[in-house]
Amino acid sequence: MRVTTSFPLGTLRDTPSEAEIISHQLLLKGGYIRRVNSGIYAYMPIMFRVIEKISAIIDQELNSIGCTKLLLPQLHPADLWKKSKRWEGYTAGEGIMFHLKDRQGKEFGLGPTHEEVITSIASEIINSYKQLPQCFYQIQTKFRDEIRPRFGLMRSREFIMKDGYSFHSSQKDLASFYEKMGQAYANIFQNCGLHTVGVEADSGAIGGASSKEFMVTANAGEDTILFTESGSYAANIEKAFSIPSQAIPLNNYSSELLDTPNQKTIEDICKKNNLDPSQIVKVVIFIGKFEDKTEVPIIACIRGDQHINEVKLFNLLNKKYASNLIQLKILEDNTIIKKNLVNFPLGFIGPDIGNKTIKIDSNWNKKWFKIADQSASNLSTFISGGNQVNTHKVFREFSFTEKDYLIADIRNAKKGDKININSDEKLKEAKGIEIGHIFQLGQKYSEKLNANFSDKDGKLQNLWMGCYGIGVTRIAQAAIEQNHDENGICWPIQIAPFQIIIIPTNLKDPIQKELTEEIYEDLKNNKIDVLLDDRDDRAGVKFKDADLIGIPFQIIIGRDSINKEVEFSSRATKTKIKISTNKLLEKFISESKVMYNKNS
Amino acid sequence: MRVTTSFPLGTLRDTPSEAEIISHQLLLKGGYIRRVNSGIYAYMPIMFRVIEKISAIIDQELNSIGCTKLLLPQLHPADLWKKSKRWEGYTAGEGIMFHLKDRQGKEFGLGPTHEEVITSIASEIINSYKQLPQCFYQIQTKFRDEIRPRFGLMRSREFIMKDGYSFHSSQKDLASFYEKMGQAYANIFQNCGLHTVGVEADSGAIGGASSKEFMVTANAGEDTILFTESGSYAANIEKAFSIPSQAIPLNNYSSELLDTPNQKTIEDICKKNNLDPSQIVKVVIFIGKFEDKTEVPIIACIRGDQHINEVKLFNLLNKKYASNLIQLKILEDNTIIKKNLVNFPLGFIGPDIGNKTIKIDSNWNKKWFKIADQSASNLSTFISGGNQVNTHKVFREFSFTEKDYLIADIRNAKKGDKININSDEKLKEAKGIEIGHIFQLGQKYSEKLNANFSDKDGKLQNLWMGCYGIGVTRIAQAAIEQNHDENGICWPIQIAPFQIIIIPTNLKDPIQKELTEEIYEDLKNNKIDVLLDDRDDRAGVKFKDADLIGIPFQIIIGRDSINKEVEFSSRATKTKIKISTNKLLEKFISESKVMYNKNS
Repeated sequence: MRVTTSFPLGTLRDTPSEAEIISHQLLLKGGYIRRVNSGIYAYMPIMFRVIEKISAIIDQELNSIGCTKLLLPQLHPADLWKKSKRWEGYTAGEGIMFHLKDRQGKEFGLGPTHEEVITSIASEIINSYKQLPQCFYQIQTKFRDEIRPRFGLMRSREFIMKDGYSFHSSQKDLASFYEKMGQAYANIFQNCGLHTVGVEADSGAIGGASSKEFMVTANAGEDTILFTESGSYAANIEKAFSIPSQAIPLNNYSSELLDTPNQKTIEDICKKNNLDPSQIVKVVIFIGKFEDKTEVPIIACIRGDQHINEVKLFNLLNKKYASNLIQLKILEDNTIIKKNLVNFPLGFIGPDIGNKTIKIDSNWNKKWFKIADQSASNLSTFISGGNQVNTHKVFREFSFTEKDYLIADIRNAKKGDKININSDEKLKEAKGIEIGHIFQLGQKYSEKLNANFSDKDGKLQNLWMGCYGIGVTRIAQAAIEQNHDENGICWPIQIAPFQIIIIPTNLKDPIQKELTEEIYEDLKNNKIDVLLDDRDDRAGVKFKDADLIGIPFQIIIGRDSINKEVEFSSRATKTKIKISTNKLLEKFISESKVMYNKNS
Repeated sequence: MRVTTSFPLGTLRDTPSEAEIISHQLLLKGGYIRRVNSGIYAYMPIMFRVIEKISAIIDQELNSIGCTKLLLPQLHPADLWKKSKRWEGYTAGEGIMFHLKDRQGKEFGLGPTHEEVITSIASEIINSYKQLPQCFYQIQTKFRDEIRPRFGLMRSREFIMKDGYSFHSSQKDLASFYEKMGQAYANIFQNCGLHTVGVEADSGAIGGASSKEFMVTANAGEDTILFTESGSYAANIEKAFSIPSQAIPLNNYSSELLDTPNQKTIEDICKKNNLDPSQIVKVVIFIGKFEDKTEVPIIACIRGDQHINEVKLFNLLNKKYASNLIQLKILEDNTIIKKNLVNFPLGFIGPDIGNKTIKIDSNWNKKWFKIADQSASNLSTFISGGNQVNTHKVFREFSFTEKDYLIADIRNAKKGDKININSDEKLKEAKGIEIGHIFQLGQKYSEKLNANFSDKDGKLQNLWMGCYGIGVTRIAQAAIEQNHDENGICWPIQIAPFQIIIIPTNLKDPIQKELTEEIYEDLKNNKIDVLLDDRDDRAGVKFKDADLIGIPFQIIIGRDSINKEVEFSSRATKTKIKISTNKLLEKFISESKVMYNKNS
């Protein structure tokens, strides 16, 4: 392709102020994307080529494990999402699904994910175990009404995803396909030239039994990963489990009541009363709002030096109740407290608070949902709120179980924690960009959408399902986050928009011009993706743009044209050699081979 | 691909009652598409392959004339469409743009077309005539909130389109590129194996100077094409111009007034009063509603044997007023008449009706917009409404021009009309499916969105624009409409999902099974798109499905396997020959070559 006739590069001189992270800055500066609105970008021709290369790598790998490509609608009828009980959660309150009414007044959502649509279709075309397993996928623009779109294509409102859905006749077959898919994912990311790590993950609103995320480690990542050096364990912090450090026993504490005026934080109490946070039980009050409009007050207890993991708590509550949990909020608002509770000195609540604190005319459930993390329930003596303003008290031999507490893991794992009581391996922490996620959904959707098949014995069973996502546009940006320098992008050759760029320094020189055309035609004839910067511009401008857009190899055509010599340069390593044009092709092939092998 | 592991065919035994036309029926019956909602379909794997083949043909041809592919957002901010003054027209009243508010309350439309988005981007990346011309295109799902979706992918609410936009430094360059694009379009459709005709067309809401549609002629088409046998003229009826037949002169008509009780149609009046329709001037009253809320009453006159072309009338009004025309409706509602008009005997209105008929307190414009087709204004003596109930009268030497009528072509051309006063060629009529449309937009959008460039003299000029659409999913359905028989689809080989299908009649026979696998592998190794129907089903079922889904060639493996002989059959011609397996590849290559040549 020629820059003059195919597309204006549209590179920018200044770093756009809207972009916080380097990959977003470089996408904009390099003319790869253009902002149309908050979180909405146009993929310019040079970016579209990257997307096509990533898509081709995905296609190849998925086809090799028997997945079949199709294309599902982007407008989803509300009825379908109501069947799966996800409409409210995705559209009301914090819901991220764009939705609209058509001219007839019928409701539709813009698909952020396609479990409902594909399950409903599968229910029509799959009848028998003989037709199983099946795996369908698509590569498509998805929509998410992010409240704060940011980081370019990382958290945008329109983005391209590969989403796939598999159907099985048994949990066992699903589990084995899930493993196969995990391997395919690892291959795909490697073939894109990316370094990724697979981590245990929370299944979130998608639901299901087991799930794994694929992370590109990068400081700009929004996710936190906890892992051991040996690789024996890796998980998203939302899901990670670990062993907290030992608590310091609370021995021979004489008084029963502590006067704690205005000591509202654990730190305050520890400082003023010479205590360690691990001797305190922290009580946090939440309100859970469910799809069926039920509001449940929740009391959650954890050891004072630990933190509650709201994702774990959310998932737990979601499982405990028949209706879907829509919102989980810490109770802080005094108006709401006064309306629903009586004698409720927030900040001084103890785990022995009773149901009578909930007012009769409150619209909340009239019983506290009580939950304690093991870090709290393991303590025999501890200090917690005294249920009176400015008062804490000592609890001795308090049994959470006897007081109707559910004991469960609702704790944030953190770096430095052990993963196992018998091991000395400690967790490390890194930031990650999620670029893939695979789920064992089980029968969650097939049950709700009545998608069944007749098994070997002729009995109807619900289909076993898996679902598998890859952020296509995210891969592109994550690759930049992992591969750039002070001058711009250094694309992995596998997904670079072009493999090579030709930069003639002076096209007015007929010798240079002729040699340029010769090399360009030769590379094209050898099916090499080549970009020719044939602009009538200063060489400096072209060099700067070439470094910025980050094509892996550069051929610089200058004064040595007369001797049929050019410069061959590698963008990432900045190595430059002078080379005779008749060696050029050979050089490119050997260098690119090295780069392919290095990246993958 | 194997039917068992890649995708269940999902063919239907019965013709779905929702489908009115054969191509829609066959798409559903053949398992190509599945309905998710009214006008919203999933493209199943077999259909997705057809879409990919059509897309590849488009890519190849467009790239060869220097167009570059990109991908633009589907969510369009309302602000952009307000700049081009199209927001209201596309979202209010009969507007076909789905639209929504995001969580911040900002308005967006779902892109049915992308002039605004691309022009706004072009304004940022194009600065100089040196960067021109440029042509960008994308292949993408588009949205239209059709009030009555029907005919499957012909008039659906989600559909795949190729839309392209070119930018030029002069009208002349635009015009020459437009011609080049017209040729590329002809090539694309030919390469898809379609028979098309290019016709002059109305530019509709897109606007612009000149436009051409590409039609697949088929009885199921929603468009009417008028053309001459010689090919000297072809136009969409919305745009076509012709010469009406001679009127029969109204000589020696004695009375001045005609008593016409309850004679409300031209036919009634002619019958009861021994007149010819060409002796009458028909008066039709319209109300035009504009974006700026103005409502204009319109009186339109045409000869009694002719019909008003509302598209022509719409475009004329749209040009005459500064604001955009949103709606044009025939006045029929008595409540509206009573509210706005006085002494207004609808059905008996004559061309001499005065402005005083419009009530002072009406919110309409207080002056009739008067327009007469030449067929009416050419008459010197005629009969028309008497402005009294049950009365018509004779008009002698009535001058439309003197009475402030605008004389313009608002007439429907029709078959049998001459295209030229000096020619005997008469128009013929056919139904067509529009699969492509090219427009010379001129500076309409660049002016509104302030997209300019500096010309050779350093002067700022608005960009000259063209836009070019192809209905990708429509091509697929139109191809079926042109290529089917009583048993199913007969795909043109160019866009068939597979080139060949292998049908083993009995896979329990180990000899057949072995030969099947051998042939399958051999074809695959030769890069032939092959589908293997490896279902454990009766041969009859497989034959029926193969005919229904319409793969161009069939290899039937039966009892002669023992002699390494199979049947090679052509779907469209129904010819069958017995052939030795070692001749199979050669046979396929020669037969498919014939088919490629026949189709294109």
